[in-house]
Amino acid sequence: MSSHPVAVTVVGASGYTGAELLRHLAHHPHIELSAVYAHSKAGLALGEVFPALSHSELTLERFDAQHASERAQVAFLALPHGAAQGAANALRARGVTVIDLSADHRFNDPAQYADIYGAPHQHPERLKESVYGLPELFRDQLRSADLIACPGCYPTSVALGVSPAFKAGLTANYEVIADCKSGVSGAGRGAKELSLYAERAEAMQGYATLNHRHAPEMEATLGRIIAQRAGQGGYDQRARGEVKVHFSPHLTPMSRGILSTLYLRLKPGVEEREVREAYHSAYDDEPFVTLLPPGRHVTTLAVRGTNRCHLDLTVQGDMLVVHSAIDNLGKGAASQAIQCLNARLGLPETTGLQAIGMYP
Amino acid sequence: MSSHPVAVTVVGASGYTGAELLRHLAHHPHIELSAVYAHSKAGLALGEVFPALSHSELTLERFDAQHASERAQVAFLALPHGAAQGAANALRARGVTVIDLSADHRFNDPAQYADIYGAPHQHPERLKESVYGLPELFRDQLRSADLIACPGCYPTSVALGVSPAFKAGLTANYEVIADCKSGVSGAGRGAKELSLYAERAEAMQGYATLNHRHAPEMEATLGRIIAQRAGQGGYDQRARGEVKVHFSPHLTPMSRGILSTLYLRLKPGVEEREVREAYHSAYDDEPFVTLLPPGRHVTTLAVRGTNRCHLDLTVQGDMLVVHSAIDNLGKGAASQAIQCLNARLGLPETTGLQAIGMYP
Amino acid sequence: MSSHPVAVTVVGASGYTGAELLRHLAHHPHIELSAVYAHSKAGLALGEVFPALSHSELTLERFDAQHASERAQVAFLALPHGAAQGAANALRARGVTVIDLSADHRFNDPAQYADIYGAPHQHPERLKESVYGLPELFRDQLRSADLIACPGCYPTSVALGVSPAFKAGLTANYEVIADCKSGVSGAGRGAKELSLYAERAEAMQGYATLNHRHAPEMEATLGRIIAQRAGQGGYDQRARGEVKVHFSPHLTPMSRGILSTLYLRLKPGVEEREVREAYHSAYDDEPFVTLLPPGRHVTTLAVRGTNRCHLDLTVQGDMLVVHSAIDNLGKGAASQAIQCLNARLGLPETTGLQAIGMYP
Amino acid sequence: MSSHPVAVTVVGASGYTGAELLRHLAHHPHIELSAVYAHSKAGLALGEVFPALSHSELTLERFDAQHASERAQVAFLALPHGAAQGAANALRARGVTVIDLSADHRFNDPAQYADIYGAPHQHPERLKESVYGLPELFRDQLRSADLIACPGCYPTSVALGVSPAFKAGLTANYEVIADCKSGVSGAGRGAKELSLYAERAEAMQGYATLNHRHAPEMEATLGRIIAQRAGQGGYDQRARGEVKVHFSPHLTPMSRGILSTLYLRLKPGVEEREVREAYHSAYDDEPFVTLLPPGRHVTTLAVRGTNRCHLDLTVQGDMLVVHSAIDNLGKGAASQAIQCLNARLGLPETTGLQAIGMYP
Repeated sequence: MSSHPVAVTVVGASGYTGAELLRHLAHHPHIELSAVYAHSKAGLALGEVFPALSHSELTLERFDAQHASERAQVAFLALPHGAAQGAANALRARGVTVIDLSADHRFNDPAQYADIYGAPHQHPERLKESVYGLPELFRDQLRSADLIACPGCYPTSVALGVSPAFKAGLTANYEVIADCKSGVSGAGRGAKELSLYAERAEAMQGYATLNHRHAPEMEATLGRIIAQRAGQGGYDQRARGEVKVHFSPHLTPMSRGILSTLYLRLKPGVEEREVREAYHSAYDDEPFVTLLPPGRHVTTLAVRGTNRCHLDLTVQGDMLVVHSAIDNLGKGAASQAIQCLNARLGLPETTGLQAIGMYP
Repeated sequence: MSSHPVAVTVVGASGYTGAELLRHLAHHPHIELSAVYAHSKAGLALGEVFPALSHSELTLERFDAQHASERAQVAFLALPHGAAQGAANALRARGVTVIDLSADHRFNDPAQYADIYGAPHQHPERLKESVYGLPELFRDQLRSADLIACPGCYPTSVALGVSPAFKAGLTANYEVIADCKSGVSGAGRGAKELSLYAERAEAMQGYATLNHRHAPEMEATLGRIIAQRAGQGGYDQRARGEVKVHFSPHLTPMSRGILSTLYLRLKPGVEEREVREAYHSAYDDEPFVTLLPPGRHVTTLAVRGTNRCHLDLTVQGDMLVVHSAIDNLGKGAASQAIQCLNARLGLPETTGLQAIGMYP
Repeated sequence: MSSHPVAVTVVGASGYTGAELLRHLAHHPHIELSAVYAHSKAGLALGEVFPALSHSELTLERFDAQHASERAQVAFLALPHGAAQGAANALRARGVTVIDLSADHRFNDPAQYADIYGAPHQHPERLKESVYGLPELFRDQLRSADLIACPGCYPTSVALGVSPAFKAGLTANYEVIADCKSGVSGAGRGAKELSLYAERAEAMQGYATLNHRHAPEMEATLGRIIAQRAGQGGYDQRARGEVKVHFSPHLTPMSRGILSTLYLRLKPGVEEREVREAYHSAYDDEPFVTLLPPGRHVTTLAVRGTNRCHLDLTVQGDMLVVHSAIDNLGKGAASQAIQCLNARLGLPETTGLQAIGMYP
Repeated sequence: MSSHPVAVTVVGASGYTGAELLRHLAHHPHIELSAVYAHSKAGLALGEVFPALSHSELTLERFDAQHASERAQVAFLALPHGAAQGAANALRARGVTVIDLSADHRFNDPAQYADIYGAPHQHPERLKESVYGLPELFRDQLRSADLIACPGCYPTSVALGVSPAFKAGLTANYEVIADCKSGVSGAGRGAKELSLYAERAEAMQGYATLNHRHAPEMEATLGRIIAQRAGQGGYDQRARGEVKVHFSPHLTPMSRGILSTLYLRLKPGVEEREVREAYHSAYDDEPFVTLLPPGRHVTTLAVRGTNRCHLDLTVQGDMLVVHSAIDNLGKGAASQAIQCLNARLGLPETTGLQAIGMYP
């Protein structure tokens, strides 16, 4: 790592993920924010767009790849899916390392992307280049990645909660029911009736039941975990195809946070002790993932504003229930993107990300 | 039904369930509230205990069974479990019809009660007399019941969401995963750190995972449903023992409401159309239960303050997901208790309960 | 009052005020809802627009004055200001009694309307005909009114809180500081960034300080009160011009409710006892307004969903502080409109409006 | 400043203010936390008391002054008033610098303390020693203080909002109406019915109107400001006695934050331009206080979790309205206490306190 700070930019800085990137980057000792881009709010001072940044002197500019490449070595893209792929390609062509927080580079297979997002990818060759930005699972590949595809918030929460059980071969099958509860900021800052205060307060509600785009992303991620294991002789390659995530998301009356309740079937005879050992083994060296001791339950409040993932688990008979709590804008988006950059730069992954959650 | 109003009393009127009983009873055309009892708040005017009742002239009195029996033909008990059984016995001995909202009379088997609630029942003979107060499922028995044991809020929500699938024999087994999200009022009005505003806002959190007292209550209720079906020759009696509810409750940052997400396995070949038909067949004549059309999802906001239960369902392969939304203090407690009384009195069950939910 | 129900319609039924009108009208024993109109949501079933009305069979129609006049004797207009005046005129021309919940007919003086709302009124002659729909203050005129201009939510709250002190001549002047806190539903159901859940949770914020259109409405209303008093010889006519409301509204993280904190200066020597007497004298016969006893404070939670106004007052030296709590969609809009209709029809004003607030 | 970190301790670490101290101290580069004390929760690990600290290895100990003085050079007291004075005295006697966040040392006059808090101070001589911990106003004295009395949350918000106008002699008198809205955490972590989620959601409510202990604290602080000014020949000493704060606090449905709306009367002829200049002059060099430009309004959401104070102001005629937003647990308590310590240690006041607020 150079002693000079790394120049970075945020493209699409006017939404909630953008705000969270700016907040975390401001604390980072080895990063210098050199430009911030937005579309409809270009020209506004940051303080006009985010009142928490009223003291900032930066102004949102309209994005231009050439301009950005002259300013920054690394670009975070906090753009809608569809819009990120063009920007990523133009920046990569100019040598900029791209950390894409959209859904545009999460699948390596162009056909799968087209199938799920309803349109062919404009730069399918970039999909091959991209590495999935979940450091706890794919750290090695991130060290040399120049196009990092950050996971969605739900998939991060589910993959961290499920993978130790799958990896350790503790489950009867590769099926999981993922009942996930998300804060309203997960729907973005766009003005939609569904996201109004008066529509969401006191309103717990399912949506996109068994039909959400994040389910195949989860299945692909867990499939790679199982394939890794298979490579170690544990399971045969067919395992990949057997992964099934029954994904049922819910809008929850809170601003931030995801709580995923994960239901898995253990192999006959597997006991709670073995399950706990597998999770401890997976995460005891991970600075951001904590398994709570028996009898305590995770809460979204405790991880709010942080890059942390808290887990608890319960076993009864062959049923394993795991709760996985993250901040959808933190470990589920912005701070995990910075964790990826730290990995890429060879910095300790905790650099700039050690803040403790407010309570309350 | 007599042309004179029925004199009723509420015992334990200072909590949230008590408040909701008083609110609904005030609208009931055939009921006259003759006394309200409470323990620690005896002597206070209702308006001091519930600011929404600031215009009321009633005062809370200390409960005495003889006094109550001279005033009322029917008593609603909104007492903690353990405290209700003595009051119920004393009132029944004096000829008062008792509608118990506590957990004290929900099991007919004294051994099961003792096992779950950790102490023997003081009046086990009353358990034989009691009828479970879920009119949509046990209406016939309620018509002549003088000791009605109202279901818990979670069991109401789960039983209404699951029973049509079990009754119609659509499922591969009698197992259900019940991932339930409850508003904070479900924890009562007692001052506990866990229930503080600052602890619960932004805090989605599981608790008592696979280890909540309502699970055996749910299993007993669903077992009775299956036994009814078995009696019709559909399944053999062993079915009863096979019911398994994997119950995972969660505290949700809202005051009221329960959303239960229910996961069931369909028999091979069962299609969504059949499932919808079974639910329509079960509920189209029920005034308080509504199955939403495909593509719409229930929300707790829409049933708040009402006696309604809204359902939606999704089928994918052999997975059936049902969402069931009620107000934990309404259909999950107070208004359902009044619905039971209507059934007992031979009144239309909707009497006094037709209010529409506020939105927002 | 005829023994036939009165046929009414709601024009602009797809917003929050519309929902609240429909909810209250459904309980009204002498009213029959004959049609519901909306603009962008015409063609949808009510249940698609308001999930709390999922069991309703009504469908929103596109508004047409001729169509409405054939269906209804009375029309409630829940339209944006500017849009209501044309509808009102067309309906009045066809003999329909109009109860306008918009701001379009709240001023009798066309010049004042044009000044405040930035455009000339299209039917200025209708302004002369209109009566301000605050029954506690202008009941006599409402009995024969055919165009009723319902007050805004803030003005209702402030006028009820201030008028007894002004009427009784207790204050040193006709100036009041009105620090008002409103729930987010006051901004309507339109999708605006400002009204998003994630923007409003944890966000107490002032807006339009000393510069809100409701201030002149408040001043006009209080001016009429003082002129009444002047007519009784208490003050001279100049009083009218001296009324000054320093109005400072705030967005509060809740769905419903207005709490107005009102600061007034008492004449030298006026004591708390006299002030309490004035408020009791004004409201003890009013079914919807309650002055709490000393030591208790009103809360918006206690009046939510009702037509009630709760007041408390504190005196220290020459400072009088009054808290006035209403539901902005109830007494501040929909239920007060129905109270006006009751007055117009010669019914008891409480008809259909006696619901008690939920708690919590 | 020494190159060794300063050893500090937190006494009373199990409440919300304690949690916020621990959170901020963890980021401070020159401070080492050497012990944490609590009373009823002594013996518990921090992670059991604050789920956001689940990864911490510290355990709460029972407080002992000797033990603490051997561990720490500086002690933060986050104890209830009454309990702090004994601890402060014992620690001062052992040479520990004390930063008291309770109300115990905010008045220099023992008689005034006894009058307001209803009991004589146990160590009245300590009151003479104490310095009021509001750096923007009393920075010079803090540099050598060894007993710092941190202001209450309301007084911080009001003093920062009012003092520039008083200091610059712009107001007609020294009277202010302070209409303050506080998040529920201001009532502490104690389990009280009043602080329950279900009691506070949707519940805007005044309390202690014109009768709160913070009013004389505000008056004393503003009196000292005016006396400073008087010393410069601006006003005569009588000014001090003329300060009057009409303080009207309100409980607001949010976890954190105070918004104070301050109403002042300007001298005849004073224009908005002059007022803005006075506030800019007071705060443009202050790192934590920002006056928003005309047309923008402060929100509690934007200062949550930070040591910042945001201000906006509006002038109309002789009425000046100032909004002042802080986090009650941050600038109103914990982070301001650390700012005081920074001043005392000769560090830049922003050391460890530069975090940006989350949005949302």
